[in-house]
Amino acid sequence: MTTYQRIVLASRPQGGIAPDNFRLETVPLPDIADGQLLVRNHYLSLDPYMRMRMEDVKSYAAPQPLDEVMIGGTAGEVIASKHPKFQVGDKVVGMFGWSEIGLSDGNLLKKIDTSRVPLSAWLGVVGMPGMTAWYGLNQIIRPKAGETIAVSAASGAVGSVVGQLAKLAGCRVVGIAGGKQKCDYVVSELGFDACVDYKAGNLFKDLKAAAPNGIDGLFENVGGAVMDATLARMNPFGRIALCGMIAGYDGQLMPVHYLHMVLSMRLSMQGFIVSEHLEFWPQGLGELAQLVGDGRLKYRETIADGLAAAPAAFIGMLRGKNFGKQLVKLV
Amino acid sequence: MTTYQRIVLASRPQGGIAPDNFRLETVPLPDIADGQLLVRNHYLSLDPYMRMRMEDVKSYAAPQPLDEVMIGGTAGEVIASKHPKFQVGDKVVGMFGWSEIGLSDGNLLKKIDTSRVPLSAWLGVVGMPGMTAWYGLNQIIRPKAGETIAVSAASGAVGSVVGQLAKLAGCRVVGIAGGKQKCDYVVSELGFDACVDYKAGNLFKDLKAAAPNGIDGLFENVGGAVMDATLARMNPFGRIALCGMIAGYDGQLMPVHYLHMVLSMRLSMQGFIVSEHLEFWPQGLGELAQLVGDGRLKYRETIADGLAAAPAAFIGMLRGKNFGKQLVKLV
Repeated sequence: MTTYQRIVLASRPQGGIAPDNFRLETVPLPDIADGQLLVRNHYLSLDPYMRMRMEDVKSYAAPQPLDEVMIGGTAGEVIASKHPKFQVGDKVVGMFGWSEIGLSDGNLLKKIDTSRVPLSAWLGVVGMPGMTAWYGLNQIIRPKAGETIAVSAASGAVGSVVGQLAKLAGCRVVGIAGGKQKCDYVVSELGFDACVDYKAGNLFKDLKAAAPNGIDGLFENVGGAVMDATLARMNPFGRIALCGMIAGYDGQLMPVHYLHMVLSMRLSMQGFIVSEHLEFWPQGLGELAQLVGDGRLKYRETIADGLAAAPAAFIGMLRGKNFGKQLVKLV
Repeated sequence: MTTYQRIVLASRPQGGIAPDNFRLETVPLPDIADGQLLVRNHYLSLDPYMRMRMEDVKSYAAPQPLDEVMIGGTAGEVIASKHPKFQVGDKVVGMFGWSEIGLSDGNLLKKIDTSRVPLSAWLGVVGMPGMTAWYGLNQIIRPKAGETIAVSAASGAVGSVVGQLAKLAGCRVVGIAGGKQKCDYVVSELGFDACVDYKAGNLFKDLKAAAPNGIDGLFENVGGAVMDATLARMNPFGRIALCGMIAGYDGQLMPVHYLHMVLSMRLSMQGFIVSEHLEFWPQGLGELAQLVGDGRLKYRETIADGLAAAPAAFIGMLRGKNFGKQLVKLV
């Protein structure tokens, strides 16, 4: 192995995202200096936040630079090391981006234990998406037993964890997802109490039937019309964790019509980015790993094969074609 | 005096509010039993929340019943008493509604001191509107010196207090109001740093000029397009106290397009009703009365003359025709 492949951002989306916004490159394998190590990435994580980074707009993070490797979380194995704390064979998660190889000085690289939790799960249910669910639910919504919690994109990497953790907290859990297959999954396999298929065309009516006592906590991953329908069902003093507005990532403004519910129901709404709350990660990841190891927290992955498949997999995920955590298998 | 006048809700608004939604009645003066007292109301307070009560919709309070006296705060004088704690001549504030007379058992009636704060001010700057400003600013926005605070309906009973308290807290204060006259008032007389006239047609641009460093705290009294423009200027970790959405009180849904800023800027938004936070009223009213007595907190009133003028004054207020606190003088 003397070369490897990586994908850079070739251009910013004009209107909608397209495969030619990305460019696959083959580059030489780097040498490592003292204190450095080389990681062969086995899995690349594809996540909605990447879409926002592709735009050159004011946001919580700097835009993804053009002609540089697309940002992204990775899980892999150390294949060469001149670093005292890492040895060949160590399993690690890092932020090497859309690349088969990562060169590191050890900073922000984390050794993981794959004996009870598989390598890929450290990018999903026991990674950033899992922590996003854990933080938004436990630190913003703060569910109480008997309350009704709603979560959109319910079968996704974040939503599926939100709902299962809320069930473990003794809540009634209502998912919102696109299509019967995803809804069946979150009810039958994940144990949600109900799921509303927003593609069925009766969002308000179906949500009323699924949450007859209203909604006390909303974990919002979607925005737009789906958020409107849940806002309209909120109970007094409800809490909203605003985690994603995936429907708007192609640049269009998504009107929300029921914001007056925040006033009339005295709701609180909090936008958050889990990477700004690193102090909670050790506790949260510990709890999530325990639950996964015990088989009490289930997850599903959609795995694309090979780095070249990443752009299509990413675009498909933004359109809801994935089922659970979207990964790219690199080895 | 053997009869008095009162105004009841005759019908619910169909589309928009109209004068014939109200009916003026002349009724006999009641006798008082032991433990009761009679109040001659001198001032009636007109407030935006009344518009919402006129609708038969799910909200934080029960709808105003048809054919009953319209709800409302009043300030007046005891004219007859068989109650041990109230004497003829006592000045009191209560919730007697759109009525020249109030019959009470003393419950929820409060004696006030008009030596330093005039009677009418106990319905405004040292009443519910003042407390709304005090609570939303101090308990939700929690301004820090040097921050920029924006407030819509800036010349109104609530907004004018929000801005002056924020100035006292060392903030840069940007008001939003309709028309040059109101903007001139909040800058020249109330000491705001800047004011944007939303009727001038350059809301986004003018707000950018008025808040060059962005907005850290937003006290929102209006909703809709005005809220959109301020949302677009919010800084990371900004706080929004959602107090009113007056633009939507005629029943139309007001789309908000910049809600994604809550996510990208990690904002918190809290809807609130000041009457649910009575535990803060003694402290807040004490501070407000002190500031008014010292001349450090200014206010303006628009006073309609006579109960029969209340419907037109109320409709005018909803359309922004008042300047400061809208009252009806009954005596």
